[in-house]
Amino acid sequence: MELKENERIDDLEYKGLKIIQNKDGFCFGMDSVLLSDFAKEIKDNSNVLDLGTGTGILPILLCGKTNLKKIYGIEIQEKVANMAKRSSVLNGLENRFEVINCNILDIEKYLKRESFDAIVTNPPYKKQETGKVSKQDIKKISKHEITANLEDFISSSKNMLKDKGSLFMVHRPERLAEIMYLLKKYNLEPKALRLVQPSIEKNPNLVLIKAVKNAKPFLKIEKTLIVYDQNGNYTSEILKIYNLQ
Amino acid sequence: MELKENERIDDLEYKGLKIIQNKDGFCFGMDSVLLSDFAKEIKDNSNVLDLGTGTGILPILLCGKTNLKKIYGIEIQEKVANMAKRSSVLNGLENRFEVINCNILDIEKYLKRESFDAIVTNPPYKKQETGKVSKQDIKKISKHEITANLEDFISSSKNMLKDKGSLFMVHRPERLAEIMYLLKKYNLEPKALRLVQPSIEKNPNLVLIKAVKNAKPFLKIEKTLIVYDQNGNYTSEILKIYNLQ
Repeated sequence: MELKENERIDDLEYKGLKIIQNKDGFCFGMDSVLLSDFAKEIKDNSNVLDLGTGTGILPILLCGKTNLKKIYGIEIQEKVANMAKRSSVLNGLENRFEVINCNILDIEKYLKRESFDAIVTNPPYKKQETGKVSKQDIKKISKHEITANLEDFISSSKNMLKDKGSLFMVHRPERLAEIMYLLKKYNLEPKALRLVQPSIEKNPNLVLIKAVKNAKPFLKIEKTLIVYDQNGNYTSEILKIYNLQ
Repeated sequence: MELKENERIDDLEYKGLKIIQNKDGFCFGMDSVLLSDFAKEIKDNSNVLDLGTGTGILPILLCGKTNLKKIYGIEIQEKVANMAKRSSVLNGLENRFEVINCNILDIEKYLKRESFDAIVTNPPYKKQETGKVSKQDIKKISKHEITANLEDFISSSKNMLKDKGSLFMVHRPERLAEIMYLLKKYNLEPKALRLVQPSIEKNPNLVLIKAVKNAKPFLKIEKTLIVYDQNGNYTSEILKIYNLQ
């Protein structure tokens, strides 16, 4: 596998899976790992979509954790999409994980509307800054709503999901009210919510949300996920998610 | 203080406060105590409203915990409103806690629109059942959306709050998405959220929400409140809230 400047191959320590990342670009974090775990209920033979796949961490993990049939990763940044494509090959996932290099707003040029059983997304967390941001800045495009905003991610999800299809999203707590409002606006009913706290004493820094298209209202809030115990070690649930226990 | 059949006076074990309850009716629970604590930031000299006050537990506790100027408790059930009135007198709060016996939908006949600094509410948690429910059933009216639904509580709050006034609500987790949606619909921006779990291993059974009228979006989710520790004793935070530590 040919690597470009500043790229490296990271071992995911899970079923031999690997990923190509650029050490100067956006590297995946715990949020993607937690989301892949939250979404592991995705059914066998599902047709899945990842909106804003980045280097492909979610599709790679989900190919390991579920028996999904096919997952398409949409990524607007050409260099990043190219890394994801090479990671798909590196893991022998060419037939299950396909990368499409486009803006999520153009997705219907490539994929059929209402054809997905499940969608996963780890969208940019921050609203666009008021100052000018270079469209060339990979890290900024990964983190800020420059090329598509939260409503675009949610409306695209609604368009692409089948009736009763599921959307799995990870985001920041401060956006939760907006997320709930937009999900309901687009008939994606919030059905499960989980907060993630660094420790029992700290406020949550992530939220995991599952919504189902055209479902009846009834939200199940799961017990808060705690990352570190009082001695500063991973809790047993985190060790299980990371496959270390 | 004269008591009617099946009534009793309960000591709130807080600053000598007491409350009249009917042992066959709806008696207050931990949700009211937690909401009074969550709302204790209410500023000195505030004009406050409690929508669906029941026997007046929230106004009585808030008169003890804050320096609010005046709190009006709205209660549709005449017998229950009468208990709340007598509890106000029993606690010498006649000048600070006034009960109005009406449906929250008629509130503007009694009180001025947009005149409140803060509103607290512990609305009926359950949607109206499909079967017929007797309008005479005190417990059912306290627990079910028979005479006013969640949207009525939220739209009334919007009408009665001043600009930048705060709404404090306690409710069940399964309604959170609907609550967030309706709050935003009525320009009551969710600003703080706290989940309450019986223990670290159990799913939340209550949510505490603060919304501010016409505020900018940014939700602070606070660390989950745990009620019992692993030995089955109240956690130190609960002991503090109950003034036992």
